[in-house]
Amino acid sequence: MSHNSFGHLFRVTSWGESHGPAIGGVVDGCPAGIPLSEADIQPFLDKRRPGQSKFVTQRQEPDQVRILSGVFEGVTTGTPISLLIENQDQRSKDYGEIADRFRPGHADLAYHLKYGVRDYRGGGRSSARETAVRVAAGAIARKVLGTGVVIRGAMVAMGPLGIDRARLDWAETDRNPFFCPDPGAVPAWEEKLAATRKAGSSLGAVIELVAEGVPVGLGAPLYGKLDADLASALMSINAVKGVEIGEGFASAALDGEANADEMRMGPEGEVEFLSNHAGGILGGISTGQPIVARFAVKPTSSILTPRRSVDRFGQEVEVLTKGRHDPCVGIRAVPVGEAMLACVLADHLLRQRAQNPDAPERPRLPRN
Amino acid sequence: MSHNSFGHLFRVTSWGESHGPAIGGVVDGCPAGIPLSEADIQPFLDKRRPGQSKFVTQRQEPDQVRILSGVFEGVTTGTPISLLIENQDQRSKDYGEIADRFRPGHADLAYHLKYGVRDYRGGGRSSARETAVRVAAGAIARKVLGTGVVIRGAMVAMGPLGIDRARLDWAETDRNPFFCPDPGAVPAWEEKLAATRKAGSSLGAVIELVAEGVPVGLGAPLYGKLDADLASALMSINAVKGVEIGEGFASAALDGEANADEMRMGPEGEVEFLSNHAGGILGGISTGQPIVARFAVKPTSSILTPRRSVDRFGQEVEVLTKGRHDPCVGIRAVPVGEAMLACVLADHLLRQRAQNPDAPERPRLPRN
Amino acid sequence: MSHNSFGHLFRVTSWGESHGPAIGGVVDGCPAGIPLSEADIQPFLDKRRPGQSKFVTQRQEPDQVRILSGVFEGVTTGTPISLLIENQDQRSKDYGEIADRFRPGHADLAYHLKYGVRDYRGGGRSSARETAVRVAAGAIARKVLGTGVVIRGAMVAMGPLGIDRARLDWAETDRNPFFCPDPGAVPAWEEKLAATRKAGSSLGAVIELVAEGVPVGLGAPLYGKLDADLASALMSINAVKGVEIGEGFASAALDGEANADEMRMGPEGEVEFLSNHAGGILGGISTGQPIVARFAVKPTSSILTPRRSVDRFGQEVEVLTKGRHDPCVGIRAVPVGEAMLACVLADHLLRQRAQNPDAPERPRLPRN
Amino acid sequence: MSHNSFGHLFRVTSWGESHGPAIGGVVDGCPAGIPLSEADIQPFLDKRRPGQSKFVTQRQEPDQVRILSGVFEGVTTGTPISLLIENQDQRSKDYGEIADRFRPGHADLAYHLKYGVRDYRGGGRSSARETAVRVAAGAIARKVLGTGVVIRGAMVAMGPLGIDRARLDWAETDRNPFFCPDPGAVPAWEEKLAATRKAGSSLGAVIELVAEGVPVGLGAPLYGKLDADLASALMSINAVKGVEIGEGFASAALDGEANADEMRMGPEGEVEFLSNHAGGILGGISTGQPIVARFAVKPTSSILTPRRSVDRFGQEVEVLTKGRHDPCVGIRAVPVGEAMLACVLADHLLRQRAQNPDAPERPRLPRN
Repeated sequence: MSHNSFGHLFRVTSWGESHGPAIGGVVDGCPAGIPLSEADIQPFLDKRRPGQSKFVTQRQEPDQVRILSGVFEGVTTGTPISLLIENQDQRSKDYGEIADRFRPGHADLAYHLKYGVRDYRGGGRSSARETAVRVAAGAIARKVLGTGVVIRGAMVAMGPLGIDRARLDWAETDRNPFFCPDPGAVPAWEEKLAATRKAGSSLGAVIELVAEGVPVGLGAPLYGKLDADLASALMSINAVKGVEIGEGFASAALDGEANADEMRMGPEGEVEFLSNHAGGILGGISTGQPIVARFAVKPTSSILTPRRSVDRFGQEVEVLTKGRHDPCVGIRAVPVGEAMLACVLADHLLRQRAQNPDAPERPRLPRN
Repeated sequence: MSHNSFGHLFRVTSWGESHGPAIGGVVDGCPAGIPLSEADIQPFLDKRRPGQSKFVTQRQEPDQVRILSGVFEGVTTGTPISLLIENQDQRSKDYGEIADRFRPGHADLAYHLKYGVRDYRGGGRSSARETAVRVAAGAIARKVLGTGVVIRGAMVAMGPLGIDRARLDWAETDRNPFFCPDPGAVPAWEEKLAATRKAGSSLGAVIELVAEGVPVGLGAPLYGKLDADLASALMSINAVKGVEIGEGFASAALDGEANADEMRMGPEGEVEFLSNHAGGILGGISTGQPIVARFAVKPTSSILTPRRSVDRFGQEVEVLTKGRHDPCVGIRAVPVGEAMLACVLADHLLRQRAQNPDAPERPRLPRN
Repeated sequence: MSHNSFGHLFRVTSWGESHGPAIGGVVDGCPAGIPLSEADIQPFLDKRRPGQSKFVTQRQEPDQVRILSGVFEGVTTGTPISLLIENQDQRSKDYGEIADRFRPGHADLAYHLKYGVRDYRGGGRSSARETAVRVAAGAIARKVLGTGVVIRGAMVAMGPLGIDRARLDWAETDRNPFFCPDPGAVPAWEEKLAATRKAGSSLGAVIELVAEGVPVGLGAPLYGKLDADLASALMSINAVKGVEIGEGFASAALDGEANADEMRMGPEGEVEFLSNHAGGILGGISTGQPIVARFAVKPTSSILTPRRSVDRFGQEVEVLTKGRHDPCVGIRAVPVGEAMLACVLADHLLRQRAQNPDAPERPRLPRN
Repeated sequence: MSHNSFGHLFRVTSWGESHGPAIGGVVDGCPAGIPLSEADIQPFLDKRRPGQSKFVTQRQEPDQVRILSGVFEGVTTGTPISLLIENQDQRSKDYGEIADRFRPGHADLAYHLKYGVRDYRGGGRSSARETAVRVAAGAIARKVLGTGVVIRGAMVAMGPLGIDRARLDWAETDRNPFFCPDPGAVPAWEEKLAATRKAGSSLGAVIELVAEGVPVGLGAPLYGKLDADLASALMSINAVKGVEIGEGFASAALDGEANADEMRMGPEGEVEFLSNHAGGILGGISTGQPIVARFAVKPTSSILTPRRSVDRFGQEVEVLTKGRHDPCVGIRAVPVGEAMLACVLADHLLRQRAQNPDAPERPRLPRN
């Protein structure tokens, strides 16, 4: 990963500010011959798009993606794929008052001190708007992975409210505005977030990602471990403050007996695990079990209650954020997290092919 | 990060297996003119060295590091620094029985399926022994950062036992075999780990890292964010299953008011924060507050209780680990985590210098 | 360098095909606070633009560049700079007949065999049209280098015709359609190229680049040597078949006495060289002397004389190229070469700042 | 390529100085399961080894390579391969007088100005001794490429003396101390170099490399073109001042008709070229034709005739080099060039597998 690129062989370079003319990205290294059109990408963008319920920012953006290169007669050509999404509903006037003031919890101050200059309109480069590029790249990554790999995300905690895992149902995530997988939790979440929104406050969240059907052997230990790259990819999303794999932080409280994932032989020579504390990754390498990751999203700092801050002239001020914003930015982080997971897996699929071209994606041990 | 290297400008490449003739690494990009000798590195290696108490593996390794290049007449020359540590106490016989069997929770199976071949002696490349190279590189990174940056680590939870933060005292970490910062917690930890060891079991841990005096402006958003690179660096350590920055996962349960770090002006034009939920990083960039990170270490899978597994011939077997091992590998992860934090900071210090050479490390706002 | 990016800290990612909707690029890592607008870039694009004389392709492209990100209120912000140039005069019909046939000397066959699919319209990704992106990036690189660094290019050989170096005058390069620095050579070149064009043939060329005022100390030996990166950058330009530095291939025929650049002290403690066989680079590092490089451009393969070839169905065919093309593509390679040199220097300037921040750009030896 | 590493997927990191305890390197990304031992590497090192004839430096180095990691039970494991070669015949006293003086044409001054400090013993990091690491890595690269790829090098010009290509015979390169492929040229070369050596002077050289059997499709256009990476790799070798592919600089003097490589169909559907002006690379991609490259080596600057120079105190001095040195360093550059070509090809083989895993190495067009 460098400044604004991530991945090595499936490499995404992102650009754009919240209130510039457009945002976009370049996907380099995509294999040739993959059918691809805007229609493959748009549904994922629509899932992330603002303005879809009262629980997300009311900024109206169609988020129509255009492919400007790398696709010819409906298939990828192996050359870089340029993606462009125009900004339409910038309303710069909303944000004028924060040109000089640094919002607590925002990147405002840090960008100012690092660069000496910043595009303050709508958060500029640090705006969550950039995550649309990630989602578009993730849609291409899914095509690279193929339909055998299924990647799903869900919000498993909203502020102090969690879910009952006994009721977990992935299909449910499409039926409520929170990508919540527990239908029983939805009414309480709805009530809580409505009140939060009304109060001009905000809530954090925990997102869970699961990838099934991931080929065995992905991950380049020791420093390109699959979990290390995934940690970086998820931590790079706006407002994320923690990442864990499998049992995660809870594993610290276990003893070795409880944490071990025992193994038996499956009917066709495949290894079957009796549990998945590891979250599908051992020694930095995928084992064929579902990859499980979670990440924590802090509550957005854009709130109506005044907070003490300073401005760029060294004056002490109070700041409150009146502009459109997300009361729980974790909601829209769900498709973003899915996209980052897809990109990391696609990158490692290519890396594995390069180094170990004969390694089977679904290995079997030689039973006799 | 690629396979066995990490960092961009302060770049570490690591090599070696647990039972080969040696392990080592190459540090490339280190600035010239820095006084450096083995004596600067050895104390950090000694802190990580096995065999120092009954609570860590009894493998006896002097872990004497040799600098083979990049230093001339006591100072770095700007050319790559080659580090070599010989393996002395390999005792391959200890591990013979795991040549064919895959230990649950270990990298054995994953390496076998990915590469088709593996050095099974002592875990080979996936052994925690490799972390000595990280520690040596971290010692050089500290020299690059200078004495103004103070990096410390502590074990803040061992298995189910935590600490009382009211008693937190960094000096205490040098006075007990756990790097525990709470003297009140030590007796209970001692008792717990002694029993765990006796039972042939193991415990997980949570490590906390703090870096003070970090220059403002480190971090290359959006994908080279300081926290993203730190997440990758820490997750790449053996047995780590989770990473969090500042408030971390707990921030998900907060509302925006509680999570905001308010700001006031300090006496000399510096910005003062009234809290540090952010862990010293906003928008991926260091703010001058202490950088705070935690990571979770799972309990080692090397336990005496037999676990069900399979071997490379597809036979179902039981595995128990008789060899020397750490009942709580989290202990030795403390200096390793510190080293990774140092390396990430040194890399970003160089990156910041490159792009923003005139940005002050301790910026002041223009008060009037 | 990876697939479609080059540079490390001043990093350019390029995308686009000859007959797609647009071409463009992303410049990442540019320092913040540099005044920049389209007006800084356009003059360099205009110099490369087709259709300006009868000696270059008659394709009509205004080559208007748009900056879509990374600049705010007239200065760079340190975030990625996205550049977009629309394609306007594609005339796909001109190229229809080469959809299936592989033009000798072109990339057609190679792309077909590598990717299994290719955008054959106007050469697709392999078209010289892409070099506009390099030129735009080079204009930004010049801003990073500052006005103290002067980069110039000239065509010093066209087909079999050379120049008389006794008459070399850089100012002359702006006064003829060949960027020829020798006014005495121009009439013969004009006659030769007019005849070549009329015959539907093409000519090769040699371009010379000189950079004056380059800071001392640029270059990252051993594998990021300044000349190694420059060789790669120039060889990556379409149709380039050779690169040399300073005396270049001619140095092979010299003895050590003749090739040595002797040194004396200048009046202010600077080192003065009595000759510049080295082309300003020793051990991969800039010495403060002018950087001198040359590269050879082969004659374009697009000619009216039929050549034997094959098509993608395995049939033997004859190919002749009727479309618009450059009789001497070396002409337009002059601003492209300048741009690549600028990008390499900017990248290494940033790298030098990172590793050796206190090294003076114009060092003086301590005379007494 | 970064400071001291090259390649992306087959990545070599080199370290060491001429008079330190050892030199070495790390090869990362090598596929697993390849039989490898020191015996595979040593013959190539022996070919480069000094002291083998009166025409190369008399430094006595056995250049015995040790593999410290990455190989287990005789095969590569996919983990990094650490290579170590001890320095034995350093004789530092030979070089004492150049501690303060900058030899014209050497890297001495440049390193001093860039880093402020340098290991002056035997040229330190800039010594040709480092090329042993390249040769060792190249031997591993050849194993990755397999026996179907044959890489050969020859010296085709020594100072002002060339060869008669009508007599070119690759087998001859093993029968004379110059790797000269023309037996008719050897006596004159011998006489010339003997006189040069006696006079304490030196000569330049041109080396030609040919790789046959290279898979079709290697090269990652536009900036990871096979020829661009090859140019960088060859230019990074000590004393190299020029690189060309195929017809190279001579192509600039040709017209399009003469330069086109016409194509016909071979008996089994393969494309046959009627000439190879392109040197086996079109559009940055290998076509299956032999890859042909040449590079120019300047005469070593270490000569007995005094040259004017300066020292680090700013004093004007005269320098002559009394130590052991190569009268024609181009001789030993032959195996080094072969090794760099092998490394570039191995890297691109892995890159091609990653992106286009189904592309055949020997494609056939569908004849009917």
